[in-house]
Amino acid sequence: MSSESADVRAALTANDAFYTAFRTGDASAMDACWSKSEPVLCTHPGWLPIHGRQEVMQSWRQILANGPPSIRWSDGRVAIVRGVAFVSCTEWLMDATLVATNVFVWEEASWKLVHHHASPLSQDMNPEGPTRDPLH
Amino acid sequence: MSSESADVRAALTANDAFYTAFRTGDASAMDACWSKSEPVLCTHPGWLPIHGRQEVMQSWRQILANGPPSIRWSDGRVAIVRGVAFVSCTEWLMDATLVATNVFVWEEASWKLVHHHASPLSQDMNPEGPTRDPLH
Repeated sequence: MSSESADVRAALTANDAFYTAFRTGDASAMDACWSKSEPVLCTHPGWLPIHGRQEVMQSWRQILANGPPSIRWSDGRVAIVRGVAFVSCTEWLMDATLVATNVFVWEEASWKLVHHHASPLSQDMNPEGPTRDPLH
Repeated sequence: MSSESADVRAALTANDAFYTAFRTGDASAMDACWSKSEPVLCTHPGWLPIHGRQEVMQSWRQILANGPPSIRWSDGRVAIVRGVAFVSCTEWLMDATLVATNVFVWEEASWKLVHHHASPLSQDMNPEGPTRDPLH
């Protein structure tokens, strides 16, 4: 990549490709998003961490078999650390709001996922405001 | 580091130092766990992602000001990706069970955190078994 800003733009493009694969239920496209050369780690919301490409891809096939979910993302922000791209973003999954960390390595001329960790955002941290009555 | 296994052992030692700082409420030790040279990112359970060392340290001071929590960790597993150490583990925080991803870079002869993301484990994924009645 020619510059840090080009890295950042490309990382956000890769992040979008991941959510497009997710939203369209495309297991082949999801597979293509993930690194083939590095160890991968994935923590779905509420799940135990999953290590290893085969196990991570099996988890995605299981999730995508439930049908394409209504998921979109926003608030992408990138930090490049030792050539590894850390993307944080908000996920909007049906009625739930989550936050995700997606980590990419540069592999075969594009950013590939080595890590995904998504988890629910507390209602009172929701950037669109609380969707239930506040506790106090 | 002389070998991958030494890297792995040292990453687990750094992971333990992080939870020791957390458990003892030692803000100075917590500060020492985090990288001073790389951009850092921290997602506390239910919170929005926090970018930047100053902001992340402020969040830890806020958390530790509530008093040292009863926290322990287990199931540490390390993946080294492009010289960056990804540690997944289970957190036992008072009555809650969480999962965490802690990512470290090698800096000044030890592993330093650049990323922490912790989130609740679903009751039915709890490795000690469900703590409430199963839904079915």
